[in-house]
Amino acid sequence: MRTKLRRHPERRVAERDDILAILNEGLVAHVGFIDDGVPFVIPTMYARDGNVLYLHGAASGRLMSVTGSADQICVTVTLLDGIVLARSAFNHSMNYRSVIVLGNPRRVTDEEEKRRAFTALIEHVVPGRGEDTRGASATELEITGIIALDLSECSAKQRTGPPKDTKADESLQYWAGVLPIEMTFGQPLPDERAVEIPVPDYLRKYDRKRT
Amino acid sequence: MRTKLRRHPERRVAERDDILAILNEGLVAHVGFIDDGVPFVIPTMYARDGNVLYLHGAASGRLMSVTGSADQICVTVTLLDGIVLARSAFNHSMNYRSVIVLGNPRRVTDEEEKRRAFTALIEHVVPGRGEDTRGASATELEITGIIALDLSECSAKQRTGPPKDTKADESLQYWAGVLPIEMTFGQPLPDERAVEIPVPDYLRKYDRKRT
Repeated sequence: MRTKLRRHPERRVAERDDILAILNEGLVAHVGFIDDGVPFVIPTMYARDGNVLYLHGAASGRLMSVTGSADQICVTVTLLDGIVLARSAFNHSMNYRSVIVLGNPRRVTDEEEKRRAFTALIEHVVPGRGEDTRGASATELEITGIIALDLSECSAKQRTGPPKDTKADESLQYWAGVLPIEMTFGQPLPDERAVEIPVPDYLRKYDRKRT
Repeated sequence: MRTKLRRHPERRVAERDDILAILNEGLVAHVGFIDDGVPFVIPTMYARDGNVLYLHGAASGRLMSVTGSADQICVTVTLLDGIVLARSAFNHSMNYRSVIVLGNPRRVTDEEEKRRAFTALIEHVVPGRGEDTRGASATELEITGIIALDLSECSAKQRTGPPKDTKADESLQYWAGVLPIEMTFGQPLPDERAVEIPVPDYLRKYDRKRT
């Protein structure tokens, strides 16, 4: 399998549920594709619906034009959990969780599937919002490019825990440990026409941690 | 230029200083490269030294083996600033800043440059740490793969501000605005041998916002 880990095999995430949890928590994916022999990496909104990953293609006309063909793409979602400070410069690292999906993208053309994917994208970013917004019109669906990617070929990697110094370095008197990283969300800022509208529950309690 | 924006040209970041500021603030890059005809995207630590981007190659044996050749790579750094909630599902978006760099990677072999890159990597992640850690030995430098990429071909894109609804949607009574996103850092967690060592200033005041 091409997503096999070549380095740090101990960092492999084995359980499928753990892989899906990373995809559920992430907000943005980095999509890699080849255009005229050159690799491009573009940040894109995504959502998971069962065993399928949907990508919002509008971010790049380039992505949409390439994935009309049978070319392969790579989708990577990375969550940063901490900066790992070891006593030696060499053993500094990051705590993270990362998923890589490889596959042949499929352009979504069926209107019903497209509508489902559209809702999944909104609900992925803000659960509860799908019901509380004006749904996409037929024309809006038409001009939105959506790509589906099967989740069959994917792998995940993570690093957790404290730094790992060598025995010889352990007694050095440098501070060592982890600086935790978190993605946090501020007070919702209404636009000028929404100041009188109560902030919805799904925003006041917004949190991406998934169980 | 291949990094030309095809969509949303108004989102282009024109000033070079603004492009560099995004690179300075980011913690992780997503590196895209082609291996045996397949595009791969891998999260990697990076640092900028003047007009050169250094990538820590240890994250992937695959990356290092590919970039030994003349192949091109793409390095993308993305900062998320907010979730943009419009009245219509269609106009939902993200506020973000993103840089894309394309080029032919160069494997760093000169020991002096390698040491400089190594320090740049540590200082990029934790400014001030370079002086407060055991520096890399000759052997450690030897086994660390570092890639240099010229910053000559790069572009940046950003979206800021409130949602943009159509005139027809503006009177709809859905909440609309921005949910700000921030990367925050928790209390430094010392490992068991560092509990007695005072937390260094550069960690207590840690912040990635750059001016």
